[in-house]
Amino acid sequence: MRVGAQHLRSLWPAPGCDALYAIDQRRLPHEFVVARLDDADAVACAIADMTVRGAPLIGAAAAGGVALAMNADPGDAALDGVVARLGATRPTAVNLRWALARMRRRLQPLAPAARAQAAWAEAAAIAAEDVATNQAIGRHGLALLRGLRPRDGRRLQVLTHCNAGWLATVDWGTALAPVYLAQAQGLDLHVWVDETRPRNQGAALTAWELGQQGIAHTVVADNAGGHLMQRGQVDAVIVGCDRVSAGGDVANKIGTYLKALAARDNGVPFWVAMPRSTLDAGIADGLAQIPIEARDAREVTHLRGRAAGGELVEVQLVPDGSAAANPAFDVTPARLVDALITERGVVAADVAALAALEHRHV
Amino acid sequence: MRVGAQHLRSLWPAPGCDALYAIDQRRLPHEFVVARLDDADAVACAIADMTVRGAPLIGAAAAGGVALAMNADPGDAALDGVVARLGATRPTAVNLRWALARMRRRLQPLAPAARAQAAWAEAAAIAAEDVATNQAIGRHGLALLRGLRPRDGRRLQVLTHCNAGWLATVDWGTALAPVYLAQAQGLDLHVWVDETRPRNQGAALTAWELGQQGIAHTVVADNAGGHLMQRGQVDAVIVGCDRVSAGGDVANKIGTYLKALAARDNGVPFWVAMPRSTLDAGIADGLAQIPIEARDAREVTHLRGRAAGGELVEVQLVPDGSAAANPAFDVTPARLVDALITERGVVAADVAALAALEHRHV
Repeated sequence: MRVGAQHLRSLWPAPGCDALYAIDQRRLPHEFVVARLDDADAVACAIADMTVRGAPLIGAAAAGGVALAMNADPGDAALDGVVARLGATRPTAVNLRWALARMRRRLQPLAPAARAQAAWAEAAAIAAEDVATNQAIGRHGLALLRGLRPRDGRRLQVLTHCNAGWLATVDWGTALAPVYLAQAQGLDLHVWVDETRPRNQGAALTAWELGQQGIAHTVVADNAGGHLMQRGQVDAVIVGCDRVSAGGDVANKIGTYLKALAARDNGVPFWVAMPRSTLDAGIADGLAQIPIEARDAREVTHLRGRAAGGELVEVQLVPDGSAAANPAFDVTPARLVDALITERGVVAADVAALAALEHRHV
Repeated sequence: MRVGAQHLRSLWPAPGCDALYAIDQRRLPHEFVVARLDDADAVACAIADMTVRGAPLIGAAAAGGVALAMNADPGDAALDGVVARLGATRPTAVNLRWALARMRRRLQPLAPAARAQAAWAEAAAIAAEDVATNQAIGRHGLALLRGLRPRDGRRLQVLTHCNAGWLATVDWGTALAPVYLAQAQGLDLHVWVDETRPRNQGAALTAWELGQQGIAHTVVADNAGGHLMQRGQVDAVIVGCDRVSAGGDVANKIGTYLKALAARDNGVPFWVAMPRSTLDAGIADGLAQIPIEARDAREVTHLRGRAAGGELVEVQLVPDGSAAANPAFDVTPARLVDALITERGVVAADVAALAALEHRHV
C-alpha cells in the first residue's frame, strides 16, 4: 500500500535473506521508521513489543523468524527452539501458532542443509498467500458494502476498531481490504476510526494508513461508537480478529465486544474479516477457552505522543499509586456476529458454516 | 472529602463573598491547584473549559456566579444577562439550567439592593442541599450494594465511568457516594475505574479521589468493561448522569451506553445515581430531545499528562491531517437502566416511578 509516493508492504525480507525489514509500528503515526531484524531473537522481541503486530502479520513475521534461525543453525534442536521461542511471544492470535506449525511441517522432514532455503520459500509463500487472502476478503466484503443502503442517500459510513488494515497484514489488510477496494472502484465512503485505547492502534495506525491512501476518516474515542450508531451514522461495523472458535466466537482487540453489542442494539451489521488461518477449530467455546493476553499496566497508565516541539514524549495519565489492568483482547460471542468475511466468501458465524468452509472453493 | 490530610469541598465561597474558590480539575491528578474565580465571567469560563465540571457541581458553581454578578450589579438587566451567559456555557447537563432558574426565581422579586445577600444565601443553600442529597444517595445506594452477593465470597466489585465522585459535586459525589459510605461502614470493595476518554475524568479524577480516600481501585481502558463483566468481575455498574428524561433515559458521559449494554448482556445491575435536580420532566424522549454537546476535536487528537521530568506536557496522538469528532455525552435508554438512585430512594426508570418521586418523602 501507499506510504507517501512509495508502494510498500509491512514486512519484507532483505535481498540477501539475511534479515527482515518491518515498519516499526510503535513509532507511527509521528515517525516512519523501518526496523531491520537480524535474527530470530530480534523477531521475537519485535512481536512481543509490538514493533510488528496484527494477527496475520505476526504469523508472517514468525515465519521469517524461523527462516532467519535456519540461516544460523538448521538443526532439529534449533528448529524446535525457534518455534517455541516465537510461539511464546503472544498468546491470543492463533495465526502465530498456525504459521509456526506450517513452517515446522515443511522443514522437519528435510535434511538440515536444505532447510534455510526452504524456510525462506515457505515464509515468502505465507506472505504471498496473506496478500491474496486479503484481496479476496476485500472482494467479498465489498459485495456486502454494496448491498447496504445508507440513509438519505449519503455516503457509506463504516466503523472499525483497532487496526486491521494493511499494517496488520503483509498488504491490503483484512477489515480494511473492502474499504481500499471500494475506493479503487469509486465508491464514496467514510470510516469512523475507534482510537483503540490503550495502545491507540486506531488513532495511530488506522488513521495514518487511511490518510496515506486518501480515504475520508474521522477518529473518535472508543466511547463514541454506540452514540454514532444510535444516531444512524454507522452503516456497518467491520473488524479483524485474532482467533475465531469453531462456532464463530471472535477474539479481537479489547472493546470489540462493546461495539458488537451496540451494533446489534441498533440494527447495524457487525462483520468480522477472517482469514482462514485465524480459525481455531480446536476451540469450542471462545469465551472459556481462548487465552486473553494481559499486557503491561504501563500501557494504560502512560502514553506516548508528539509534543509541540516534534519530539516523542511519554506522559503519565494516572495518579501515582493507582493500579491499572490491561486485558488486550475480548471475545465477541458468535450470536453478535452477522457475518464472517473469509477469502472463500461470506459465511455465518456458526459451526456448520465454518466447517463447510473447509471444502468450499471460490 | 479528603485531600491529603485536609477536608475539602470542590467549591466554596471566599470569606468576604467576593470570589469563589474551586479545585482546578484540569490540573489533576498531577497538580493540586485551587482556582480563584473573581466574577461571573470567570465562572462561565471555568465551566466551559471544565476547570469545574460534573452536573451537580456546575449547577452549584453557576449559582455562585450569579451571586458574584449581583455583587457587581444587582439590576434586572444584569440578572438576566448573567443567567443567559452562564446558561450558555454547556448544553447537556440540566442542573445548570435548574440552578439558574432557581436563582432567578429567588432574586427577581427582590429589590436590587437585597439581591446580592440573598444570592449568596441561595447559592449556599444549593451547595448544602447538594451535599445532603448526595449523602442520601449514598445511603440508598449502599442498601443496593449490600443486597449483592459477590461470586465466591470475594469482595464486592463496582465499575464506574467518568467521574461522579465528590469532584463532580460539592461533596460526597453521586455514583461514588455509596462507595464512600460503604468504606465508612467497613464493607470491603474494589472499584474498576473507566479511563473515560477523551478527557480521562476516570483516570485523572476518579482514580485520584479514590486514592485520596484509600479505596481499592484499578484503572482500565474504556474498552475493558465488557470483558470484565463477561468474566464475572463486576457486581454492579454505578454511574452519574447529566440529564434524565421523564421516562428515565439517561444522558451521561459518552460511553455510558456501551457499559449499560454490556451490563444487560451479562446480567450485571446497571444503576444511575440521580439527584432530582438532574431530572428534566420536560423531555419525553431522551435520545431525540436531549442536546448532546460536541466538544473540541482537539480533546481527542491531543492529551495532556505528566512527563518524566514532572512537567505537564500536551502530546498529539493522531496523525496530522486526520479529522476527529468529540460527542461528549450519549443517552442510555431507560430499558437498560435497572435502578435510579435518588435522594428520595431507589426508583425504576419509568414515567410512573419518576412522577411519583415528586410526592415521595424519605
